[in-house]
Amino acid sequence: MLGIDLSEKMLAQAAAATRDAAITYGRADMEQIELPADSFNLVYSSLALHYVENLDGLISAVYRSLVAGGSFVFSVEHPIFTAPAEPGWSLNSASRKTWPVDGYLDEGPRSTDWLTKSVIKQHRTLATYINMLVRLGFAIGHVEEWGPTREQIASNPGWADEHQRPPFLLMAARR
Amino acid sequence: MLGIDLSEKMLAQAAAATRDAAITYGRADMEQIELPADSFNLVYSSLALHYVENLDGLISAVYRSLVAGGSFVFSVEHPIFTAPAEPGWSLNSASRKTWPVDGYLDEGPRSTDWLTKSVIKQHRTLATYINMLVRLGFAIGHVEEWGPTREQIASNPGWADEHQRPPFLLMAARR
Repeated sequence: MLGIDLSEKMLAQAAAATRDAAITYGRADMEQIELPADSFNLVYSSLALHYVENLDGLISAVYRSLVAGGSFVFSVEHPIFTAPAEPGWSLNSASRKTWPVDGYLDEGPRSTDWLTKSVIKQHRTLATYINMLVRLGFAIGHVEEWGPTREQIASNPGWADEHQRPPFLLMAARR
Repeated sequence: MLGIDLSEKMLAQAAAATRDAAITYGRADMEQIELPADSFNLVYSSLALHYVENLDGLISAVYRSLVAGGSFVFSVEHPIFTAPAEPGWSLNSASRKTWPVDGYLDEGPRSTDWLTKSVIKQHRTLATYINMLVRLGFAIGHVEEWGPTREQIASNPGWADEHQRPPFLLMAARR
């Protein structure tokens, strides 16, 4: 198992938290990553790819690094979530919260204040993710537009708004 | 070539407009359709499947009717378009039009007034379309979240709003 991050501090935290001889950690930038060919059964990324500009290059590298039949599983912020120029809830005439989608088809950088000022994310449509995977050789296995279920909201009432539009997109594809 | 519709009037119009010996027309209900097995290279549907309740049954019938390697191509109203309880434009603080998404994850009927009162459409998420196709044996080939391009808006200024969120979803899948 190979764990990759750009941050030395995150790698140090990961190594301290796991301490398992089967895991190797490496420092690399997703924008220009090199991976050993035909080596992995699974490549997994959690909520990171929407920061990558050169997604085509990254997914090509992931494809080459997988064995035949290997899986690529990732999550990103959902395109409905990243699209708006003003990402915040509005109210409709029934005082129900709505998410103000605009600019969905205008792909490219979005600047938001999250953890720190002016974090840049790359907005891409859902079609772009799927078509890029297919074009680079992957077969689409499953797509999940995640939001909390009614049961999850019952035990976490603060999640209720997230049911109105999915905050996360998860995909599984196979080489 | 076999053309199918539920409406005798539409079938009569189609026959009058085409008059081609290679085309046969048949009357059938998409909710309970029967098609000859291993018979078609292409099955195509334009802006109709979002009216179908038993989509699983219809797509199963389409799959069986295709030859190996045959294609299923269809368009539907986009889930972002069908989701809202109040499907109409709002304005954000910059007076830019936004589409008020809510209920995206609540699949099921939506009633709108279009051509006539209380037209019922079935709202489904984009993930549901993709996962249903994959589960029933299809390989996803291409997804298009259609909206007018900047060039199309220049020649059809009335289409400008449709660029803010896709009105149509088009998919191509292969048996």
